[in-house]
Amino acid sequence: MNKSKNLSTFIACETTYQDSNTVIFGVPFDGTTSYRPGARFAMSAIRNESYSIETYSPYIDKDLEDTKVYDFGDIEIPFGNTDRVLKKVEKVVATIVKDEKFPIMVGGEHLITLGAIRALSRTYDNLHIIHLDAHTDLRDEYLGEKLSHATVMRRCHEIVGDNKIFQFGIRSGEKQEFEFSDEHCIIQKFNLNGIEKLKDKLGDVPVYFTIDLDVLDTSVFPGTGTPEAGGISYMDLLNGIMEVSKLNVVGLDMVELSPPNDMSGASTALACKTLRELILNFYKFEGEN
Amino acid sequence: MNKSKNLSTFIACETTYQDSNTVIFGVPFDGTTSYRPGARFAMSAIRNESYSIETYSPYIDKDLEDTKVYDFGDIEIPFGNTDRVLKKVEKVVATIVKDEKFPIMVGGEHLITLGAIRALSRTYDNLHIIHLDAHTDLRDEYLGEKLSHATVMRRCHEIVGDNKIFQFGIRSGEKQEFEFSDEHCIIQKFNLNGIEKLKDKLGDVPVYFTIDLDVLDTSVFPGTGTPEAGGISYMDLLNGIMEVSKLNVVGLDMVELSPPNDMSGASTALACKTLRELILNFYKFEGEN
Amino acid sequence: MNKSKNLSTFIACETTYQDSNTVIFGVPFDGTTSYRPGARFAMSAIRNESYSIETYSPYIDKDLEDTKVYDFGDIEIPFGNTDRVLKKVEKVVATIVKDEKFPIMVGGEHLITLGAIRALSRTYDNLHIIHLDAHTDLRDEYLGEKLSHATVMRRCHEIVGDNKIFQFGIRSGEKQEFEFSDEHCIIQKFNLNGIEKLKDKLGDVPVYFTIDLDVLDTSVFPGTGTPEAGGISYMDLLNGIMEVSKLNVVGLDMVELSPPNDMSGASTALACKTLRELILNFYKFEGEN
Amino acid sequence: MNKSKNLSTFIACETTYQDSNTVIFGVPFDGTTSYRPGARFAMSAIRNESYSIETYSPYIDKDLEDTKVYDFGDIEIPFGNTDRVLKKVEKVVATIVKDEKFPIMVGGEHLITLGAIRALSRTYDNLHIIHLDAHTDLRDEYLGEKLSHATVMRRCHEIVGDNKIFQFGIRSGEKQEFEFSDEHCIIQKFNLNGIEKLKDKLGDVPVYFTIDLDVLDTSVFPGTGTPEAGGISYMDLLNGIMEVSKLNVVGLDMVELSPPNDMSGASTALACKTLRELILNFYKFEGEN
Amino acid sequence: MNKSKNLSTFIACETTYQDSNTVIFGVPFDGTTSYRPGARFAMSAIRNESYSIETYSPYIDKDLEDTKVYDFGDIEIPFGNTDRVLKKVEKVVATIVKDEKFPIMVGGEHLITLGAIRALSRTYDNLHIIHLDAHTDLRDEYLGEKLSHATVMRRCHEIVGDNKIFQFGIRSGEKQEFEFSDEHCIIQKFNLNGIEKLKDKLGDVPVYFTIDLDVLDTSVFPGTGTPEAGGISYMDLLNGIMEVSKLNVVGLDMVELSPPNDMSGASTALACKTLRELILNFYKFEGEN
Amino acid sequence: MNKSKNLSTFIACETTYQDSNTVIFGVPFDGTTSYRPGARFAMSAIRNESYSIETYSPYIDKDLEDTKVYDFGDIEIPFGNTDRVLKKVEKVVATIVKDEKFPIMVGGEHLITLGAIRALSRTYDNLHIIHLDAHTDLRDEYLGEKLSHATVMRRCHEIVGDNKIFQFGIRSGEKQEFEFSDEHCIIQKFNLNGIEKLKDKLGDVPVYFTIDLDVLDTSVFPGTGTPEAGGISYMDLLNGIMEVSKLNVVGLDMVELSPPNDMSGASTALACKTLRELILNFYKFEGEN
Repeated sequence: MNKSKNLSTFIACETTYQDSNTVIFGVPFDGTTSYRPGARFAMSAIRNESYSIETYSPYIDKDLEDTKVYDFGDIEIPFGNTDRVLKKVEKVVATIVKDEKFPIMVGGEHLITLGAIRALSRTYDNLHIIHLDAHTDLRDEYLGEKLSHATVMRRCHEIVGDNKIFQFGIRSGEKQEFEFSDEHCIIQKFNLNGIEKLKDKLGDVPVYFTIDLDVLDTSVFPGTGTPEAGGISYMDLLNGIMEVSKLNVVGLDMVELSPPNDMSGASTALACKTLRELILNFYKFEGEN
Repeated sequence: MNKSKNLSTFIACETTYQDSNTVIFGVPFDGTTSYRPGARFAMSAIRNESYSIETYSPYIDKDLEDTKVYDFGDIEIPFGNTDRVLKKVEKVVATIVKDEKFPIMVGGEHLITLGAIRALSRTYDNLHIIHLDAHTDLRDEYLGEKLSHATVMRRCHEIVGDNKIFQFGIRSGEKQEFEFSDEHCIIQKFNLNGIEKLKDKLGDVPVYFTIDLDVLDTSVFPGTGTPEAGGISYMDLLNGIMEVSKLNVVGLDMVELSPPNDMSGASTALACKTLRELILNFYKFEGEN
Repeated sequence: MNKSKNLSTFIACETTYQDSNTVIFGVPFDGTTSYRPGARFAMSAIRNESYSIETYSPYIDKDLEDTKVYDFGDIEIPFGNTDRVLKKVEKVVATIVKDEKFPIMVGGEHLITLGAIRALSRTYDNLHIIHLDAHTDLRDEYLGEKLSHATVMRRCHEIVGDNKIFQFGIRSGEKQEFEFSDEHCIIQKFNLNGIEKLKDKLGDVPVYFTIDLDVLDTSVFPGTGTPEAGGISYMDLLNGIMEVSKLNVVGLDMVELSPPNDMSGASTALACKTLRELILNFYKFEGEN
Repeated sequence: MNKSKNLSTFIACETTYQDSNTVIFGVPFDGTTSYRPGARFAMSAIRNESYSIETYSPYIDKDLEDTKVYDFGDIEIPFGNTDRVLKKVEKVVATIVKDEKFPIMVGGEHLITLGAIRALSRTYDNLHIIHLDAHTDLRDEYLGEKLSHATVMRRCHEIVGDNKIFQFGIRSGEKQEFEFSDEHCIIQKFNLNGIEKLKDKLGDVPVYFTIDLDVLDTSVFPGTGTPEAGGISYMDLLNGIMEVSKLNVVGLDMVELSPPNDMSGASTALACKTLRELILNFYKFEGEN
Repeated sequence: MNKSKNLSTFIACETTYQDSNTVIFGVPFDGTTSYRPGARFAMSAIRNESYSIETYSPYIDKDLEDTKVYDFGDIEIPFGNTDRVLKKVEKVVATIVKDEKFPIMVGGEHLITLGAIRALSRTYDNLHIIHLDAHTDLRDEYLGEKLSHATVMRRCHEIVGDNKIFQFGIRSGEKQEFEFSDEHCIIQKFNLNGIEKLKDKLGDVPVYFTIDLDVLDTSVFPGTGTPEAGGISYMDLLNGIMEVSKLNVVGLDMVELSPPNDMSGASTALACKTLRELILNFYKFEGEN
Repeated sequence: MNKSKNLSTFIACETTYQDSNTVIFGVPFDGTTSYRPGARFAMSAIRNESYSIETYSPYIDKDLEDTKVYDFGDIEIPFGNTDRVLKKVEKVVATIVKDEKFPIMVGGEHLITLGAIRALSRTYDNLHIIHLDAHTDLRDEYLGEKLSHATVMRRCHEIVGDNKIFQFGIRSGEKQEFEFSDEHCIIQKFNLNGIEKLKDKLGDVPVYFTIDLDVLDTSVFPGTGTPEAGGISYMDLLNGIMEVSKLNVVGLDMVELSPPNDMSGASTALACKTLRELILNFYKFEGEN
């Protein structure tokens, strides 16, 4: 008697690690979340929900059934020890990259991006970051802590340096954070205008792509810890993803879904569909360069 | 001592069957729903909610108080026997049409449309279908079953034939379903573009109009079983209804509200308002042709 | 040992009454709400939530930290006695105006606007009202009562007279209410079109600004008692506020948030951000005329 | 074509007023509720829910199918005018009693009991009250108002006089209220101990029976506005009802279910079952004296 | 790189089928549920939740870590076809029994018990059933259907015959159902009194044990489709399980958890703990007879 | 114009620090919570809720109005740094004790108890702990961390030593934890039996009292992170508090309310009432020894 279909991976991501060329994994961490925690449940909810979406994208006419993606599961993390969490993330990303596979990380809270940047910056010179978010995340410290979801891009800036971080959709932050971004990053407030020009600007430099889903309007995505009105539409996001997929992206993440904050399940379903689109947009299908 | 106002009909739909020229009824069936059931509660919730909306439409300057609509109530259905449910729907629609009244059916799940098409296709030659939905609903079978919310338009296609089903707003399905639609139906993906040209194309052929409310963006309508991001706005839907009202529509339905999935009540309120607009747009007022 | 930071005021509104030039206060009243009560909890929820937003507005580059605003708290109101509530509101507004401070009132339900208009109309001749709402609120009576959220603008009209009330975004009401508005008010149905022309029309006449947050689309703002689909976007609202801020506004209110109706918290967060924008847009910073 | 079964009465209560000997009606009023409103929705929710319970009581081997009960519906009430609500209640109860039928009133909030007592005290000398509640409800005024859910038993005391009100299950109140009860009423704190001795004490004096469902433990009945831990079990309540049914009860009410406060629906289901038990326990079946 | 711990089995049930002597499986079916569906999600929710409970039972001092249990997963079922679901259940149970393992089935709705009884009655003569439930489930048909959660014990009675079904905790049903039970079954209304005498009565006859979790009081277990007040406590249930474990039980099920009906998660947590206790009480540890 | 009544303290706790002899404070920390976070919101919710309960206890005939209690507010804590949180707690408790006031701490998660024990163990020799909980909390480490809600009593044991910790109500833990408790603590599983004998055993030794509210049955208290069925009733808890109040208690805490887990508000209301009872039971009224 064979076991019934295993529901513990994202839909159609059932290749072995060896055979895969893309690896997805979850980081159930929301330890520095200051307001409403819950992002720890995101990847688990996305996996469950994935069996109610289709594997096929009518937007780009591609199908998960034609890919070789490995779902590693969730990283086991300690609670209450931020340093150890980041080290684990860093190690996992480093391994995936060493094995020449493409890493897709699903949060959890935004701080985990720092672990990925630490790993990738050792492999890639001149690493750039495309950052979609409602919030600047550029504080130097938050309630006395250097490591926080509110400081993550500041820490990333310390690694990649000036004019390497392109921020889009930003509509909340302290005045000083906006000033910092004006001076040290490239910021597009409120929307994704200009994202279609990135290819011209960046050419083939290595890029990390981080999507804080709260860049979406709260109507579209209420299921997050710090909802911020006035954001972009879902079609804006899909178009942004298609634009960024033209760049030399070496890794990406999608963070800050908090399933308990949207009991209708619509936010989780949206994240699920977005993960499918991310896999399909960034997957190297045979015959593509 | 007279009984207080009866709350068990949709607002202002208190004519007798004999005097009415439009009949609304509910079908509390969600038996083939694969993910989140709840559509069975839709019509009951809509009736309760209807006393908090106005009877007047500022969009088309018409008023339910000036109509003669009969609210038949909900069809009593057996649980767990899909065949019997469809036969009941078919019988009710056939009776309404025989009595020369206009049928408006409120789901429940989308499969019930099949019962209506079976009834109407016997009365009307060359029946066409206008289908607003997020999903193709064109599978040949689903988990081994021929009768399912996911196969309903395929079954309808078997009845009405090629190039009779006009699909709008579709953004989810298997690759094969999109291919089937390309070949056998007329599909407009993602939005309602072109709906304003239907009158030119279709003239006075008899048309059935089926609205799966999940055609709306999940921000507008989270209260449904399989929410799908990237849909149309509410003004898009209202405009679509006004366009379709120019056709020779012989029956219509509105399906897939699932009240428990949106505890704010906003989805139910929206469905309520939409039912008012549907009645007012398709009602034959005296003096109109 | 000093007490930790007091959480019972809106963020950064900690000036004394004497030093302030703007005063905010809440009115936890929803006594005439006919459908889903809950607006009574609005200001309390907004205060709690305010510590999760920023004090800085990237939209107009201003910061609450640079203002002197006093948060008076909530007015203590009797339950079940509408007259006494309105008298309390009237008295508080009259005091604030007498002391030459700018009043910002947060509902509670819309009826409380009447108390403010009663107070301000005694101070200001030729008072005009800018009214953003989904509903006309122009009934003469509601269930036999003259004082109701559904009659509030009719009562205000009795005070300020014909052609003084500018309504925007209206999409629900009885036919007679729309006719009344056509005759006695200036109405813009469905959206805020034309709000940018108010400065030309009104110049420096004294204006009261009342925002029923249900003017927003239900996708953006489900957390209200009578959600009405087809409303404006959040950017529409922000732009409307910026336009109205050019007028000679002598007081304003924001009403009808009902926190329990949106358990995601997104509606409360939106109201919170809107209150920040209202304070910053209408605050008289030094050096401004 | 006949209408499907009408869902707008409590299950099996479909007799005409003339044929009935018991009349149930709802009062959707929660206007003086100081904390969480919602009791206005109680009777509507109970009617909907009633079709999921049985008509038969295995506790006393009786069946609603064998009764003649008329469900009058809900009284239409004005919002924000407490006096008018009470007058309406008084009038309805007076009519029912004049027609020699037994009145069963379903709240709404507890204040409505006052309307019933006003009506019954004019018909019956020496009226006693059996009062099950978590709260004393004996304040003289509440936030400056004489008419409130928190003062209702004090107002009733003014009508029926000393030593006529028997309170059971009380576990919350001001110190002065407990002292008032010790002096002017008969109080059993925390539980229903002694309720089985009422028959001996009271014999055939006319009795009004009022059940505030928050007398139940919050585990059993979370769906109420002011939940108070430490209450009685459901079997305690059923036993209490059976004991009181031995008295000469001339009217009764059940108040303070607030459906939105218990989204599991269990509290509404409990109230539904309790209403069935109340009808069956107090109904005069033929052959009974 | 090894996959992280697989979360898709019940905690500590990771033996292979071959090595196991107990097999658990879920049946995500609620197709005949007449009121609030949701039981389909039960086993999936229980598996997720199981990682937050301990493997050790302090009640009987046993540990899941010392068992060999195989979690088969969920049976894939068609929606809308009750017959096929029952056949699948029957086949799975028959296979498990043929392989001399102990079957533990988790619903889903109560009708699935019929599939298990069909399988076991072919293997075991003189099969008895111990049935814990709030409802009799003894209707002959329900809304015209023979196969329903409301008829399941009647169908089972047709298989096992008179005086073989012992019902406990029953507190809801039609009068005729109670009469049927009096005549053809052995019924203990309201509680589990007498369950400790079963061993004396039944000795070693083969017994199937079916627990409808709504036998629990609604305070303890609101997360079910038809909550019924007046039930047993959790310690009553645990004691009942311990008593039944003394019999010759050849299979068991636990049904009617509906996770969406209790958003606190407490009902799911309770079901999780109960499944652990069921496994540990009925597992044949080495050295036991 | 004076500010309206300040809502940011627990009801009737408005004395200054200097005048007070009891100090309550909140610790909004749930950083090591492994499953459902939310305890961080507890004290804030309790303060809001406190204005809907009475200040008078009918259980012990005492009134908060007759006390001098200072509500310090919530400790500001860093997120993601467990060590710093514990140091802050330790410092606050040490200050309160040095100033000869009685500390009452409200969690937050259970780990914060360790901060209090560290402070008190330096002041008091021979410190004992009375521990009410569903869980042993005696792991040596949890997911590699020494500081966790699951290890807190083990860390406390390292400070106070063998046979100083009295555990009551315990019904969940690893086998090794129960064994540790048997050897090094005094454990009463499942209930509070024997708590009335503590006075005889302990006399006047200094005692710290820690209540994890999940010791209550999940029916009574679903609003917690790891609900565990089979717990004690609310009257059991009140009786336990009265017994412990006879000891020489030098500090106490109440932890693990998680308001978002019980949206009915009943759990928060219960915690509110319990805090009132704790203050009144442990307050040294004048004339008492």
